[in-house]
Amino acid sequence: MEECIFCKIIKGEIKAAKIYEDRYTYAFLDIRPASKKGGHTLVLPKNHFELITDIPEIELIALSKTIKKISKALLKFGEGLNILQNNKKVAGQYINHLHFHLIPRFKNDSISIEKWEANEYAKGEIEKLQEKIKLLI
Amino acid sequence: MEECIFCKIIKGEIKAAKIYEDRYTYAFLDIRPASKKGGHTLVLPKNHFELITDIPEIELIALSKTIKKISKALLKFGEGLNILQNNKKVAGQYINHLHFHLIPRFKNDSISIEKWEANEYAKGEIEKLQEKIKLLI
Repeated sequence: MEECIFCKIIKGEIKAAKIYEDRYTYAFLDIRPASKKGGHTLVLPKNHFELITDIPEIELIALSKTIKKISKALLKFGEGLNILQNNKKVAGQYINHLHFHLIPRFKNDSISIEKWEANEYAKGEIEKLQEKIKLLI
Repeated sequence: MEECIFCKIIKGEIKAAKIYEDRYTYAFLDIRPASKKGGHTLVLPKNHFELITDIPEIELIALSKTIKKISKALLKFGEGLNILQNNKKVAGQYINHLHFHLIPRFKNDSISIEKWEANEYAKGEIEKLQEKIKLLI
């Protein structure tokens, strides 16, 4: 899967704000977060699968454990959390490497988990958030 | 948890269109679906937990396997699928029993996975859908 941007991130060929990695799974901050507050994170299997139905059991188990682990960290300062996974373009999947969005929520944040604006982090902002979350995992 | 509507459904005290059940997990059609097409399903642990961070490992594993299983069935006729789980009211969790929404998607369905209209099934409609999906699991 030479062309997959998430495979490239996992291989370290593209830089990303990684917050967690283990044998089967990987988590990094979404560079275009639904909200800059709280640390919108992507959790994914290291191996390339497209859909939730494609992932083998051992990697599915690892993925669910990582989702729980990262959720715990994000809920230490977020007031709530949405977990979202889209299968196929018609459902909003734009990168065909299975991934879960973990989106921290705050009272009156008025963000949309569906059509989010392409927020961008200011210089140094994502690294600060990355260090903060890593300490909570 | 006497008051929990999902606990009552699992115990059979409130009727629901169940499509799957095993030792740890339960799945039934949402009575107010984002779209009546495709079978918007709720997948949940039988035991009462509020948040994704509350569920013990063995039940988390069972839950993730059931989510994959039901997704496979729903993707047999749905063109895509959203999987959504909300933690705390600020994130849109209105029933405090951990549950995953599995929402089948179709081209130009123009449904919102965020603020869905309270669609209701016509008499007999949900039972038909229930039987159809059960055959695909």
